[in-house]
Amino acid sequence: MQAMRLYDYQHAPSPRRVRMYLAEKALEVPTVQVDLRRGGQFDESFQRVSSGMVVPVLELDDGTCIAESMAICRYFEALHPEPPLFGRDARESALVEMWSRRAEFEGYIAVAEVLRNTHPRFAGRGLPGVVSGVEQIAALVDRGKASWRRFIGRVDAQLAGRAYLVGDAFTVADITAFVAVDFARVAELPCDGEHLQRWHAAIAARPSARA
Amino acid sequence: MQAMRLYDYQHAPSPRRVRMYLAEKALEVPTVQVDLRRGGQFDESFQRVSSGMVVPVLELDDGTCIAESMAICRYFEALHPEPPLFGRDARESALVEMWSRRAEFEGYIAVAEVLRNTHPRFAGRGLPGVVSGVEQIAALVDRGKASWRRFIGRVDAQLAGRAYLVGDAFTVADITAFVAVDFARVAELPCDGEHLQRWHAAIAARPSARA
Repeated sequence: MQAMRLYDYQHAPSPRRVRMYLAEKALEVPTVQVDLRRGGQFDESFQRVSSGMVVPVLELDDGTCIAESMAICRYFEALHPEPPLFGRDARESALVEMWSRRAEFEGYIAVAEVLRNTHPRFAGRGLPGVVSGVEQIAALVDRGKASWRRFIGRVDAQLAGRAYLVGDAFTVADITAFVAVDFARVAELPCDGEHLQRWHAAIAARPSARA
Repeated sequence: MQAMRLYDYQHAPSPRRVRMYLAEKALEVPTVQVDLRRGGQFDESFQRVSSGMVVPVLELDDGTCIAESMAICRYFEALHPEPPLFGRDARESALVEMWSRRAEFEGYIAVAEVLRNTHPRFAGRGLPGVVSGVEQIAALVDRGKASWRRFIGRVDAQLAGRAYLVGDAFTVADITAFVAVDFARVAELPCDGEHLQRWHAAIAARPSARA
C-alpha cells in the first residue's frame, strides 16, 4: 500500500493534458518524473506500472495502474465533479467526447505522425510504447501535415462566435485541442485561423496552461 | 424539429459498436442507412449532418449532430444509466476508458490501417472522411499487422481468469474490442489466444452481437 502517484514527464504533451486538468480542478497529485528523453519509459521497473511503456500513468493506493490521459481525467471527474470538465448534461457530454476525439484522432495524432516519422530520436520507434522495430514512414509526414490542416480549419470554423469548443464552458475538449496546437508549434506546423488564435490566447492566459 | 435518428450503415464496424450498445440497453432508435459502398457519406445532403463524412452520427430532436461512436454511447449513458456500460465507480470508469482506448488505438485502428492501405476500394482514401488525395501507404500494412499482434497478445493476457476486460461486468471496452476482432477477421488477421477466444465466444452468444 502506497500513496497515489502520477507518472509524468514535464516536457511531453500527453501528460500535459492531465496536468492542465488537475490544475483546473485545483487538485494536487504527487508526480514521479519518467525521463522520456533517455528512454525511461522502457526501464524494467516502469513496466510494472505501464505495460504499454507510455506516460502518463496514474497509480492508485491499491496498486491499480491507469494509463491514458483521458482515463486518468475521468477517474478524477467521477470523484471531483466540480467544475464539470466533461460536459454538464447528456448533450454536452456527447459533444465534449466528440470534440475530444477529433482533437486526438485528427489533431494530436497528426502532429505525432509528423514528429515520429521525421525526428532522428524516433528512428525505429514510429509508434509510442514500442522499443524498436517500427521504422519511420516518410509518407506519413505529408499525410499528417494534410490532416493537421484539415483539423485546424475545422476547429477555426467551430470557434467562430464561440469562446470554447463546446457550449459556453471550458472542457477537456479545449485542453486536448490546446495541447495539440502547442505540440504542432514544436513540429513547426501552421496554427493559423483568426478564431483559433483568439481561443488559443485566451486559454494560454489561464493559470492551468503553465501546468 | 424532427425525431431523433441514427445515421448508420449495417455492414460497417464502427456503427456496429453503437448498435450493440443500444441493444444491451434495450433502446430503439430509428436509423437511416448511409450506403458507404456507394460513397453515400460524401453526398452533399449527408454533409449537413456529418461535416466529417463518417458514420455513425446521432441527430437529436433539436438538430444537434453527434459524431463518433463513443460520443453517441455517452449521450445515451447519461440518460439511461442502467445497466452501467461505462463502469460503476471512478476506478472502473477509468479502466473502461483505458481499455476502450487501447481497443481503438491499438486494435481497431491497426485493422483499419491494414484494410485501408490494401483494398482497391480505398485507393486515394487512406483515411476515413476524406474523398480523395490520401494515397495508400504500403508500409502501414506491416505496421498495422504488428500492432494488431501486440494488441491481441495484450487482450489475451488481460482476459486470463477474467470474463470481461474490466472487472466482472460487460462494458463498452468489450464492445469495442469484440467489434475490432470481428473486423480483423474480415481483414484476415490472426485472432488467436485461448482466453481471447473464450471471451469472444461468450460475447458472440449475447443477443446484442447480432445487432
